[in-house]
Amino acid sequence: MVCIYVNYQILKCNKRVCISVLLARFDFTQGILERLDAGEIVIGDGGFVFALEKRGYVKAGPWTPEAAAEYPEAVRQLHREFLRAGSNVMQTFTFYASDDKLENRGHTQRFTGQQINEAACDLAREVANEGDALVAGGVSQTPSYLSCKSENDVKAIFKKQIDVFVKKNVDFLIAEYFEHVEEAEWAVQVLKTTGKPVAATLCIGPEGDLNKVSPGDCAVRLVKAGAQIVGVNCHFDPETCVKTVKMMKAGVEKAGLKAHYMTQPLAFHTPDCNCQGFIDLPEFPFSLEPRILTRWDMQKYAREAYNAGIHYIGGCCGFEPYHTRALAEELAPERGFLPAGSEKHGNWGSGLEMHTKPWVRARARRDYWEKLKPASGRPFCPSMAMPDGWGVTKGHADLMQQKEATSQEQLKALFNKANKSH
Amino acid sequence: MVCIYVNYQILKCNKRVCISVLLARFDFTQGILERLDAGEIVIGDGGFVFALEKRGYVKAGPWTPEAAAEYPEAVRQLHREFLRAGSNVMQTFTFYASDDKLENRGHTQRFTGQQINEAACDLAREVANEGDALVAGGVSQTPSYLSCKSENDVKAIFKKQIDVFVKKNVDFLIAEYFEHVEEAEWAVQVLKTTGKPVAATLCIGPEGDLNKVSPGDCAVRLVKAGAQIVGVNCHFDPETCVKTVKMMKAGVEKAGLKAHYMTQPLAFHTPDCNCQGFIDLPEFPFSLEPRILTRWDMQKYAREAYNAGIHYIGGCCGFEPYHTRALAEELAPERGFLPAGSEKHGNWGSGLEMHTKPWVRARARRDYWEKLKPASGRPFCPSMAMPDGWGVTKGHADLMQQKEATSQEQLKALFNKANKSH
Amino acid sequence: MVCIYVNYQILKCNKRVCISVLLARFDFTQGILERLDAGEIVIGDGGFVFALEKRGYVKAGPWTPEAAAEYPEAVRQLHREFLRAGSNVMQTFTFYASDDKLENRGHTQRFTGQQINEAACDLAREVANEGDALVAGGVSQTPSYLSCKSENDVKAIFKKQIDVFVKKNVDFLIAEYFEHVEEAEWAVQVLKTTGKPVAATLCIGPEGDLNKVSPGDCAVRLVKAGAQIVGVNCHFDPETCVKTVKMMKAGVEKAGLKAHYMTQPLAFHTPDCNCQGFIDLPEFPFSLEPRILTRWDMQKYAREAYNAGIHYIGGCCGFEPYHTRALAEELAPERGFLPAGSEKHGNWGSGLEMHTKPWVRARARRDYWEKLKPASGRPFCPSMAMPDGWGVTKGHADLMQQKEATSQEQLKALFNKANKSH
Amino acid sequence: MVCIYVNYQILKCNKRVCISVLLARFDFTQGILERLDAGEIVIGDGGFVFALEKRGYVKAGPWTPEAAAEYPEAVRQLHREFLRAGSNVMQTFTFYASDDKLENRGHTQRFTGQQINEAACDLAREVANEGDALVAGGVSQTPSYLSCKSENDVKAIFKKQIDVFVKKNVDFLIAEYFEHVEEAEWAVQVLKTTGKPVAATLCIGPEGDLNKVSPGDCAVRLVKAGAQIVGVNCHFDPETCVKTVKMMKAGVEKAGLKAHYMTQPLAFHTPDCNCQGFIDLPEFPFSLEPRILTRWDMQKYAREAYNAGIHYIGGCCGFEPYHTRALAEELAPERGFLPAGSEKHGNWGSGLEMHTKPWVRARARRDYWEKLKPASGRPFCPSMAMPDGWGVTKGHADLMQQKEATSQEQLKALFNKANKSH
Repeated sequence: MVCIYVNYQILKCNKRVCISVLLARFDFTQGILERLDAGEIVIGDGGFVFALEKRGYVKAGPWTPEAAAEYPEAVRQLHREFLRAGSNVMQTFTFYASDDKLENRGHTQRFTGQQINEAACDLAREVANEGDALVAGGVSQTPSYLSCKSENDVKAIFKKQIDVFVKKNVDFLIAEYFEHVEEAEWAVQVLKTTGKPVAATLCIGPEGDLNKVSPGDCAVRLVKAGAQIVGVNCHFDPETCVKTVKMMKAGVEKAGLKAHYMTQPLAFHTPDCNCQGFIDLPEFPFSLEPRILTRWDMQKYAREAYNAGIHYIGGCCGFEPYHTRALAEELAPERGFLPAGSEKHGNWGSGLEMHTKPWVRARARRDYWEKLKPASGRPFCPSMAMPDGWGVTKGHADLMQQKEATSQEQLKALFNKANKSH
Repeated sequence: MVCIYVNYQILKCNKRVCISVLLARFDFTQGILERLDAGEIVIGDGGFVFALEKRGYVKAGPWTPEAAAEYPEAVRQLHREFLRAGSNVMQTFTFYASDDKLENRGHTQRFTGQQINEAACDLAREVANEGDALVAGGVSQTPSYLSCKSENDVKAIFKKQIDVFVKKNVDFLIAEYFEHVEEAEWAVQVLKTTGKPVAATLCIGPEGDLNKVSPGDCAVRLVKAGAQIVGVNCHFDPETCVKTVKMMKAGVEKAGLKAHYMTQPLAFHTPDCNCQGFIDLPEFPFSLEPRILTRWDMQKYAREAYNAGIHYIGGCCGFEPYHTRALAEELAPERGFLPAGSEKHGNWGSGLEMHTKPWVRARARRDYWEKLKPASGRPFCPSMAMPDGWGVTKGHADLMQQKEATSQEQLKALFNKANKSH
Repeated sequence: MVCIYVNYQILKCNKRVCISVLLARFDFTQGILERLDAGEIVIGDGGFVFALEKRGYVKAGPWTPEAAAEYPEAVRQLHREFLRAGSNVMQTFTFYASDDKLENRGHTQRFTGQQINEAACDLAREVANEGDALVAGGVSQTPSYLSCKSENDVKAIFKKQIDVFVKKNVDFLIAEYFEHVEEAEWAVQVLKTTGKPVAATLCIGPEGDLNKVSPGDCAVRLVKAGAQIVGVNCHFDPETCVKTVKMMKAGVEKAGLKAHYMTQPLAFHTPDCNCQGFIDLPEFPFSLEPRILTRWDMQKYAREAYNAGIHYIGGCCGFEPYHTRALAEELAPERGFLPAGSEKHGNWGSGLEMHTKPWVRARARRDYWEKLKPASGRPFCPSMAMPDGWGVTKGHADLMQQKEATSQEQLKALFNKANKSH
Repeated sequence: MVCIYVNYQILKCNKRVCISVLLARFDFTQGILERLDAGEIVIGDGGFVFALEKRGYVKAGPWTPEAAAEYPEAVRQLHREFLRAGSNVMQTFTFYASDDKLENRGHTQRFTGQQINEAACDLAREVANEGDALVAGGVSQTPSYLSCKSENDVKAIFKKQIDVFVKKNVDFLIAEYFEHVEEAEWAVQVLKTTGKPVAATLCIGPEGDLNKVSPGDCAVRLVKAGAQIVGVNCHFDPETCVKTVKMMKAGVEKAGLKAHYMTQPLAFHTPDCNCQGFIDLPEFPFSLEPRILTRWDMQKYAREAYNAGIHYIGGCCGFEPYHTRALAEELAPERGFLPAGSEKHGNWGSGLEMHTKPWVRARARRDYWEKLKPASGRPFCPSMAMPDGWGVTKGHADLMQQKEATSQEQLKALFNKANKSH
């Protein structure tokens, strides 16, 4: 192990005792399992599709990652920001980059699926090498599964992405964003053939997967399928995700198995969601702004996840680099160093100590920000919403995926159905 | 004038009549006044300090732009995103880049003020040349004024930045973010010496500047000082800013003068603010998330500004590229083209037409998003807040700016004062 | 003057200094003007139509007071409760008891207008004699005015009620709930013919009457018409009403005139109302519950009204006896006595000192209740509403009153019109 | 059975089909079990302590019913209002009228416990005889139990109230408002000695009693102890209460037992409560106003309770007569008649059909009121609160009840403890 200490900074802790800590620690050798086995905290990265949608490089709806090939400088810049914020993992920007999904969305005109996956690997590796980060190749759920294709067909889809990850020699693999544990098991089985460490996360809450398999049972099945790290990502807020992973951990331990745990939640508050998560919120995906977590919400999440025995702590949709930085800052006392990005951030608001207005200077303290209940500035809006969702899942005709654009007649039928459900 | 038509796209309008429009129009020759005189709509850019703070390159509190010299790739990328979103103006990232402010914040250790201002000009020009945008050099209010320095001293501060703008040959100048119309007049007087077009925006609301000079009177004074474009920026939400500029316009017209008008509001809802704007909100600056505007709020703003006769329509703190794109999309029928970034955005949610879940596909319509009252997911938080603010302005001892960091004793005194005011 | 001191109680004040005060003071002789001239505080009563609607004796919509004749024991009981709560005025339950209004609503089948007015006088006098209260005969706006009947016709309507009040020898007269100052002037002119003291209250806010006559101008006109006491009642919350009466007072004083001032606001929060008040709120009249004021809100109101120089302090729709008691309790230090009903009320929550649960006992203090921001328990509801209202007033065809029930065709047309306005 | 049909009225249903129904049906002979066995719906009455507190006759904190003897006309009037609203049961106003409770609160100075209980029986019988109502004698939990007195001591307390109920020959008995199922069992055992029908309701939610005995298990124990009717009252909103009684019903049925079911919930929304219910809400008891249910909320409750197989449907704290009337109106189609009080109420807002303002007339329809999400008018308040509560129950020193008033030292200690818990 080679450690290069490059900088340090004064970290003020709660009790105003000053501690000198490293601003960044470069460590080029350890794999994901070595780190977790050694009790290290691994900070994940954030949600690329949402962040790049706001920047103009991903289309909401399809959510496909062709920007890896089309606009590499934008993807590279986002990787760098997460690295600077403290991420130890650069996930390849390959969400929904399976051939069947890309074909569904018409993005193979300019780039093949292989080109997109390769470009994503190259960008992740380039930036990972600039700091203390590993590269993780990721696969996610497929329209083939939802459309009731065979196990072999679905596995063949995963295999094509895996071939790129092996060729590009990523450090480990993540099967993420699965609503059905069965499909996740299939994915893990394919990933395991590479010999690389495998993590698997479902996008489920305490109610379990879409077939109502409980979080505990899901986790046991994933571990048995070969995943060394299990957890959840996306669909729910940090509070719900930590609760769900606790149930997973209890299930795994009750079964006499062992695993590492991870959470990569939304950066949106979702107290009102049911089993399908934020997709069903009326605000998804274009009016979620009032639900965005603050950096203080993030520090709370990092602490709660850590206290629950979750050591791989990252984010998903909605996470911006400053959210990730907050995770790294909260856990700086345990880790012994701050992320590079803290160069531009005073902990607990201390950057306000020199603010022009004295009443703003008075906010330069932890107590203020921890207790504040932020107003929405939206007096005509409620605080909770009734989720949509028609209680259907894989196998239902409504969910058969098609390649053709939804027709006006189909849309009209949907509007009517949706209006009746309210 | 040279026009190069590079692309086109189907623009669906409200009434589902299909119109073919250009995706982008490059036009290298016209200045800001020629455009406005010709009745064109000019889309401004967004708020760099807030956007870069979230990305890890600006420190909240000081809010200084040393990143222009320190992390040019991050600043360049943000310029590119706003250009792609439809901005016709690249403002130099020189907010709070006056020597007195930089010195106050200790950022001249690595870079001189001149270096920062020059780097900012180079980045703005580089990206402006990639599209149809002008470069605007910007100055903002100074700690010298707040600390009661003389008119000559304050003007000398502006002069140093202007020297760089002239050397780098920016296309026009903006005096922005002034709380006192008197200081803005001084700034305009300095800017006018360059012979370049001058815009001036105050960060005020309907109550007027901090000495209670009304918006109408402020605008008249700025026009008389030589500004060809007047308006407001920052501190208030779009609704309030449009209201304020309407008052400015009425004042200018009543005085028999002529001007162009601009707004660069926050991307935060601020119905509860008083005269000093969002600075005084308890949520400023670290818990403003629930107040962030949606893209639909932005389309409403663009329409209202345009209807009010405001043709320079941009943004300030909180604006992300997708917010700016929404302005350009709303006014595409008037302008005849969509921004390049609309390549990755279906208008009024049409990108959802192919969503996996049919109940989400049912949201692919204008009517849905326009009427939705988004929930905050924060049932323990209120919708409005009581602003802080001690009713003091320039001349009050509390506002004398100091170079030294606020001491613990000073902070303690502030906490006590703040607690009493609640 | 004969004073009979009947009881006393320990009144704990803010500073926990104990003061012995009288529980009730019976004073049989002084009239309303003598009291106000002497600087006494007069506590009004509450809103009978709303309170009796909840009890089952008034029909929402018509809002007519036939219960005075039909169910006298229910009306008598409510009078007694307000008397016990500290009211010094028993208003005759004669709201909307003009013959034209009663006829419009079909309530003259069982009782004539005269019978209802007489019964109301008898009940008010009976209960007033049980304590220290005066009887006030009240008239309110008429459908005749709204339907553009002549001044003579409208005055004749008032005259019929006045004849009963004179016969029953009430102590003074109130013209209340007028949306147009012109009609209120006519009413005052009729009331003045009796020689009794006359009070006049409009149901207006800071924007003035429905013809936009300002509060100050309205007040001047009422005083010139002969009213000795002027103010507002109904339609707005206490905060708005106090603000409006301040404007009235400023107008009267500017005109070199003199008057006493009164407020009888709603017990509903109405920050979102426009000029027509709570009638236009979507919640009116059947879903106003979330807006009901607490007793602590009422104490704040009493203090603010008193500080504004308003000495006749009462209530209107939504006031229950405990609301009125809160007014009397807040002003007990100034008045020197508590109301009889305080026998069953510990001030500032002190009744909780013996509560079973210790954490509830911890709420037995002023500081707790004054600062509490009460939750609505309605996370799917907003905090503010957009008022209806079509911007029409007297003279518009939509407001011509008819005797016949609204037909299904008319209702259907209204629904369509209302839906379009949103 | 003698039925006297006295009146009828047009009842408009959803589909605007007109149905003629009876306004009231007098039926003098059937007992509570005969009615429920016959499938009749029994409408309970509302919460006397809260309603009379607002009217000035009950002191919040002690909540004792000495008004039955002190102010009989006020209690009689409230009974009459509930009868008129449709209640079939007049509960004796004997809540917290056990000798140990009264002694704790110092109310035996003027009246003995026996006098209060007797007066309450006489008032209930007097009014019950005016309509179709039964008299129910009620007992509730005792401070003796909380202070760990013996089973014999606690039973002796109940016995003293029962002696009065037998002497006054009430129609049936209710053991209500028990937080511990054990104490409720003891109460049922005592009540059963009278030979009268016995109902038993706990003030618990889905989490069960304060010792975490589940609702299902609680219900089984109560039925085995001899209760023929079981359910819940107070502490939670209707939605929570219906959910809890469903769990009770499932438990009873699973155990192969039979019972009738009842709910008497709060008229306050309590989505944020934990196991101890609304007592622990920060708003209890003086700032609950924003949580009050509308009449439309009540109709929803009545329907849901009926659909869940609950046929004894009443209310508790917060219920005003109009709330009870809404229950009777919702179930009028099933029962075949409306309550007498509907004489003054148009169903689903139809009373607005003749309103002065046409936009208010447009609200005269079910669709409008059912869908309306009422605003609170309180933009500075949240929608949910964090309950207090220290996780202690019977047996903990903090809950030992004392006769002496809480001292200033004790209160100060409580404040400190409470502040720490937040």
